[in-house]
Amino acid sequence: MMHISELETPALLIDLDVMERNLVRVAAYAREHGLRLRPHTKTHKTPALGKRQVELGAAGLTVAKVGEAEVMAQAGGPGLLVAYPIIGASKLARLAAVARNMPVTVSLDSEEAARQLSEAGSRHGVSFGVLVEVDLGFGRVGVDPLAAALSLIRFVRAQPCLSWEGIAFYPGHIKLLDEAGMATLRHVTDLLSRCLESLHDSGLVPAVVSGGSTPTLFQSHLVSGMNEIRPGTYIFNDRNTVASGACAWGDCAATLLVTVISNAKSGQVLIDGGSKTFSSDTMAGGSEAEFGRIVEAPQSRFFKMNEEHGFVDVSASGDAFAVGDRLRVIPNHICVAVNLHERMYGVRGERVECVWQVEARGKLQ
Amino acid sequence: MMHISELETPALLIDLDVMERNLVRVAAYAREHGLRLRPHTKTHKTPALGKRQVELGAAGLTVAKVGEAEVMAQAGGPGLLVAYPIIGASKLARLAAVARNMPVTVSLDSEEAARQLSEAGSRHGVSFGVLVEVDLGFGRVGVDPLAAALSLIRFVRAQPCLSWEGIAFYPGHIKLLDEAGMATLRHVTDLLSRCLESLHDSGLVPAVVSGGSTPTLFQSHLVSGMNEIRPGTYIFNDRNTVASGACAWGDCAATLLVTVISNAKSGQVLIDGGSKTFSSDTMAGGSEAEFGRIVEAPQSRFFKMNEEHGFVDVSASGDAFAVGDRLRVIPNHICVAVNLHERMYGVRGERVECVWQVEARGKLQ
Repeated sequence: MMHISELETPALLIDLDVMERNLVRVAAYAREHGLRLRPHTKTHKTPALGKRQVELGAAGLTVAKVGEAEVMAQAGGPGLLVAYPIIGASKLARLAAVARNMPVTVSLDSEEAARQLSEAGSRHGVSFGVLVEVDLGFGRVGVDPLAAALSLIRFVRAQPCLSWEGIAFYPGHIKLLDEAGMATLRHVTDLLSRCLESLHDSGLVPAVVSGGSTPTLFQSHLVSGMNEIRPGTYIFNDRNTVASGACAWGDCAATLLVTVISNAKSGQVLIDGGSKTFSSDTMAGGSEAEFGRIVEAPQSRFFKMNEEHGFVDVSASGDAFAVGDRLRVIPNHICVAVNLHERMYGVRGERVECVWQVEARGKLQ
Repeated sequence: MMHISELETPALLIDLDVMERNLVRVAAYAREHGLRLRPHTKTHKTPALGKRQVELGAAGLTVAKVGEAEVMAQAGGPGLLVAYPIIGASKLARLAAVARNMPVTVSLDSEEAARQLSEAGSRHGVSFGVLVEVDLGFGRVGVDPLAAALSLIRFVRAQPCLSWEGIAFYPGHIKLLDEAGMATLRHVTDLLSRCLESLHDSGLVPAVVSGGSTPTLFQSHLVSGMNEIRPGTYIFNDRNTVASGACAWGDCAATLLVTVISNAKSGQVLIDGGSKTFSSDTMAGGSEAEFGRIVEAPQSRFFKMNEEHGFVDVSASGDAFAVGDRLRVIPNHICVAVNLHERMYGVRGERVECVWQVEARGKLQ
């Protein structure tokens, strides 16, 4: 059994007990409220972890890209949701190959995407489930939830190789469940109600109403009409999740183990991780420019990054570190950080208990 | 021969003619001014391209990490410079293995790093060259260029398995060669002169004085005393390089080929590349938040990203794109973008002439 001190840095560590607790908590929440849980695997990109989510009762796994679907098919389970419009014959042929082995649902927001998907189904002898993506205010993908949604659902239902399963949305514009966030949540819920009414009035009852975002995760049962959630980050959590109020520091399972490589400048230490280790993501919706929380020195400020250098200001906190000292850092955004690493190390205390290859890392197509 | 239209997106394209012109231009500039050119391979992370830089007269290749050194050793050439303090016995053992086959120089800024490096040389029966890193105002790694540099050089010279070769610095605080940038450049040059004088006075004449940054690349001959440059970005260039004044749009060899996946919201198109395709790097030193230049629609604004979604505002430019249309995007910072891709496609016009694996991608240790 390896000890953490034997790992070369920077290394991505996953606290196995914290991760398991996070997985169980959300699975229990979903079960308690009768919500389908279709975890987004973009956060961990690792079939072994997708498999654990399936064991804990997931109604399938969510991916963003065909390459992720190909990898995550190894995790098994009831099926895959590709929460992204897939465009182009070549990618669709690959997706059809996945659909030969397990049910595949795609969320999309255009007739063109629906037409291409159905054609691929027809060409390769498979059918696809479809969720029609509606925009409840985030302004990314998604059609208007009233007239346009109705029209697109009818179009989907008319395609030979598509089976309409419901609607999907992503309320990513709710950053914090403060007063403004609660008002936005009410607005989303209201828009969703009107969308569902309009569908019911037209005799179209969606089996799946899929939504949810991390800040609102544990308020999902308040969104009347929604029956499925697709959280991703909850498996590890990060600085953003803590800031949103959806978890505490002790729920952050992922840390970057780094080494102090220079303290030549007074009041500052340099760590061996920068934008190629953490990503350059700043905090969601904020102007604050810190890049992580140093577990051993939470009062210090990780204020700047270059590609391989992290700048930590210890002048105010009074922390002193020597070249060679090791620190653990909770990143701002774990999903993009994981994507930069070849491996993750599962740890308990100071012991490294397992190593996962991040198999869907960089599967951009 | 493949046509670009056959590639799945997002795909990283390299215009072979532009790249070759960039490589030749900088090699000629260095030769003309008697400067050693030790290109930083962090930008391309690809041995075949390092090999081309060696063929064009590079005095060796530069890397940041041991994993990059292991990969880039395949490119051959006079030797490798690891422009980063390497800490820890395990990494140093791997670096010693590289040093068995070719000369390896490390730049460092602490006695601890020098002591560890020499011990590794002794343990594994190799010796390492050393550049002592001095800080000429950037405030990252690097000791004070006067007293502290002298002391560290003496320490390095006293270690059994180290050979002191010179000094290194990085003037990354010069972002633009405007009036302020020129003043900073003069300050750097002045500080360097005083550093070199102090070394000469002590009988320590550095064989290598290694510096340079991309914005100041073609002014390197004005920095009196510097005899080596380590540019990286020049092979491809990017939006930052154009903004710094060191190249024109036509010198940008790298573009991201993306597909429009949604235009459901009026005045906006969504492309299939976000922070996992481009990185979330904003422009160096600026508050402007655009994430790339759309070649086909330079007046449009790539104003926001999520992990796999790019938001392009076409409301002011009046551009209209259909789902399935393809666009090419010049990224803000090509070095971090390359690191997110498994492959790069070398293109001439619309033809794909070669594919490179980005072999040193994600080699963080």
